[in-house]
Amino acid sequence: MFKSERIFHHRLIMYILGLLLLIEAAAMLSCLPVSIWYNDSAFIPLLLGSGVTALSGFLLWFVNRNFKRENLGKREGYVIVSFSWIIFSLFGALPFFFSVSDLSFTDAFFETMSGFTTTGATIFSDIESLPEGLLYWRALTHWLGGMGIIVLSLAILPLLGIGGMQLFAAEVPGITKDKLHPRIKETAKRLWGIYILLTFLQAILLMLGGMNLYESLCHAYATMATGGFSTRNEGMMEFSPYIQYVVIVFMFLAGANFTLHYWLLKGKLKTIWKNDEFRFYLTLVLLPTMLITIGLINQGFFGVESSFRKALFQVVSIITTTGFVSDNYLLWPGSMWFILFLLMFVGGSAGSTGGGVKIVRHLLLLRNSRLELRRLIHPMAVIPVRLNGKAVSENVIFKVTAFFLIYIFSVAIGTFMITLFGIDFETSIGAVTSAIGNIGPGIGLVGPIYNFSFLPDIAKWLLSFLMLIGRLELFTVLILFSPSFWKS
Amino acid sequence: MFKSERIFHHRLIMYILGLLLLIEAAAMLSCLPVSIWYNDSAFIPLLLGSGVTALSGFLLWFVNRNFKRENLGKREGYVIVSFSWIIFSLFGALPFFFSVSDLSFTDAFFETMSGFTTTGATIFSDIESLPEGLLYWRALTHWLGGMGIIVLSLAILPLLGIGGMQLFAAEVPGITKDKLHPRIKETAKRLWGIYILLTFLQAILLMLGGMNLYESLCHAYATMATGGFSTRNEGMMEFSPYIQYVVIVFMFLAGANFTLHYWLLKGKLKTIWKNDEFRFYLTLVLLPTMLITIGLINQGFFGVESSFRKALFQVVSIITTTGFVSDNYLLWPGSMWFILFLLMFVGGSAGSTGGGVKIVRHLLLLRNSRLELRRLIHPMAVIPVRLNGKAVSENVIFKVTAFFLIYIFSVAIGTFMITLFGIDFETSIGAVTSAIGNIGPGIGLVGPIYNFSFLPDIAKWLLSFLMLIGRLELFTVLILFSPSFWKS
Repeated sequence: MFKSERIFHHRLIMYILGLLLLIEAAAMLSCLPVSIWYNDSAFIPLLLGSGVTALSGFLLWFVNRNFKRENLGKREGYVIVSFSWIIFSLFGALPFFFSVSDLSFTDAFFETMSGFTTTGATIFSDIESLPEGLLYWRALTHWLGGMGIIVLSLAILPLLGIGGMQLFAAEVPGITKDKLHPRIKETAKRLWGIYILLTFLQAILLMLGGMNLYESLCHAYATMATGGFSTRNEGMMEFSPYIQYVVIVFMFLAGANFTLHYWLLKGKLKTIWKNDEFRFYLTLVLLPTMLITIGLINQGFFGVESSFRKALFQVVSIITTTGFVSDNYLLWPGSMWFILFLLMFVGGSAGSTGGGVKIVRHLLLLRNSRLELRRLIHPMAVIPVRLNGKAVSENVIFKVTAFFLIYIFSVAIGTFMITLFGIDFETSIGAVTSAIGNIGPGIGLVGPIYNFSFLPDIAKWLLSFLMLIGRLELFTVLILFSPSFWKS
Repeated sequence: MFKSERIFHHRLIMYILGLLLLIEAAAMLSCLPVSIWYNDSAFIPLLLGSGVTALSGFLLWFVNRNFKRENLGKREGYVIVSFSWIIFSLFGALPFFFSVSDLSFTDAFFETMSGFTTTGATIFSDIESLPEGLLYWRALTHWLGGMGIIVLSLAILPLLGIGGMQLFAAEVPGITKDKLHPRIKETAKRLWGIYILLTFLQAILLMLGGMNLYESLCHAYATMATGGFSTRNEGMMEFSPYIQYVVIVFMFLAGANFTLHYWLLKGKLKTIWKNDEFRFYLTLVLLPTMLITIGLINQGFFGVESSFRKALFQVVSIITTTGFVSDNYLLWPGSMWFILFLLMFVGGSAGSTGGGVKIVRHLLLLRNSRLELRRLIHPMAVIPVRLNGKAVSENVIFKVTAFFLIYIFSVAIGTFMITLFGIDFETSIGAVTSAIGNIGPGIGLVGPIYNFSFLPDIAKWLLSFLMLIGRLELFTVLILFSPSFWKS
């Protein structure tokens, strides 16, 4: 309860946001070597963007530095989480805005929000014409966003009572239920270590396939964050089967719970195999891949290996909410891409960098629905949903169903609002589903080979908002709109 | 619990189904006067259909008559409910099958299931070419289906623990929680009385608008059952504004809880006004009507009154799951018909003849989702959902969410299966949403001015199944597929 708590520390929030902006400014500076190497036009925009960001961050930090405190309240936590993504996108948009002539700030903001939320929806049609330094920054927004999500979903959100990971609270090292624990730092470090390790491992494997260092890093950033920005106009279509398979493997890893990677490193394969969500994740990858492979072979356009690769790539790309494209799936038979459309509602595992509803939520909803039939037959029996052998509390099931319903309602209302601009049904529902699920490509005119540039400005702001709430597990943002949140 | 219960009385079930078939045979006979009056070609088909139905019913009854019992178990209840709709449709298809040359049994069955489930989706393109006696039987399938639904939703399903009406158990005269009470007969009679009264009142009002007796009855049957079959190719477009307004009023009444009509007759207007579901029903009619009216006026094709009437008609028609058409709404701006598409997921009130998810379920889901935010802010507080001033048990919320999820999953899987036949996305999701919601018209190629005839046979059987499970509140049918149901 909040009523016994103290006033809302807005200056503490500004202090922390100031620090975060200083980190972002440093990240922009880290793109300069790329710009110098390629001698491109992004040097000044990146420097300028970094300067403005650093100055703003310094001012925020300096003015509020006397309000530093050891302990953050829950309410401050909610506000910091939402606003850090917003200000990161506002300032992260500057290099785009300074670099590309005729680019509106709306477009720059959309692109950056799409980056930090690891969505990967783009407003650029000719990506290859952009300077390398800027594309490196674009990929880096993904990677930083993914980094934020890891610490958020595994360390911060469970404390706020949000996100699928609360289910595993006991299994994640460093998470206790009551307050921000000093071991959070430890957890974050350990999981960031895995994230960084996997990123560089992937970059090396991509280089072995003939990619240069710059493109390898960009694609590794985009993969491990389940982002989806590519440096090429045709995305993954331009690369060899070897590279596509490497990307498939790392998308799959990025979409799995990062604590499982921790167990993997410790050699506890049995713990991983026994994990209910991981098994369901495997099923949700293999079954649709099988169906689509058969469908594509049947269609007769591609050979067996090619059909399998295209199917597996697209299924993993969509389910993990990465959004890389290795084929224009809208040219597949309707039922094949409809499978992909349904998978857009699935999302990655809890504790991964993937977005969407999350696999564990679907698992709980499915089990609960099946049990409801058994409860009808045995109305007196108490039949709880089980996960990894343990009974799940009714409270958690409540949260999960509320999440799913708000998700579905958001898609419905969002789609309606997009259709108001005269956009057709398929494009509207595709854009909204893709945005809230942090995927990237949708269906219709925002399909795999198109981009989001033609949409009206208001639609872009709406989609940016959907990316934000989808990325932050809905409640984190929506709670800020609840009047009782602000009553102190 | 069932384990202490006795064996499954399948012969008792056949006995009851036999009796029901005799009633159906009598209903077919009641169409003969129409056929005689118009001297049409349906006389022999109706007579023949009635004969086969009566004979089958008699045999079922005769062979199993020694198994008559006073008390029905729950399991027998589930089976009887599902199978009565199935055999009614199987035998009710006979007059269509005998009467229309070149009509496949699949089509005849689809049309009849569409009738008895009060859906109103048709496979006929030239309705006016059909004999009047057959069209009268077609309208009568709606009316009988609606009659079945009233007794089902207000008297039988609450006993089986299914359906939104369990929420009002205390408020419906004659419903007790434990067993089939003799007062059920009283309840059924009283509500059927209201149903019959409203039907004839509407028929009279239609005749005052210039409709002949036969068409008035057909349209009144289709309205009060929230069915949607018309005797005209162009449906409600062919009739005057006066007639359209009459139909609007009676669709609205048919989509409201029938116990409210009971209170209305008793003059208790305050009880009605205080009913949460009724208020939400009003909101869900008025708000979209307002939006669409503005949209249509803006478009400039229709005048103010015409825009308002078209909007109100279509909103009431879709939300009550009637499915009458007074304008081709697919020609409206995309966001206008998208509102109608969303309303297809709403459905009528609990205890009405309307299908779909039902308004009270949406109300509970919305309230629960909003409360989930408050629960996050006050994690220790117990905050129940309230309906009509009373706290709703968590158990009920569980059932409602499970219902909604299974509904959504059914739409997703159903749409996928239809796309397998090469049908496009919009048509597929339109046909499935319309079928499971018992509406009638959908979007795409099954839109308001088209029909379902072009679909492949398997798709028609699938849609018939969806109509059935949608009509019988999902669980009633799906429970039969649960292995633990059959363990005695």
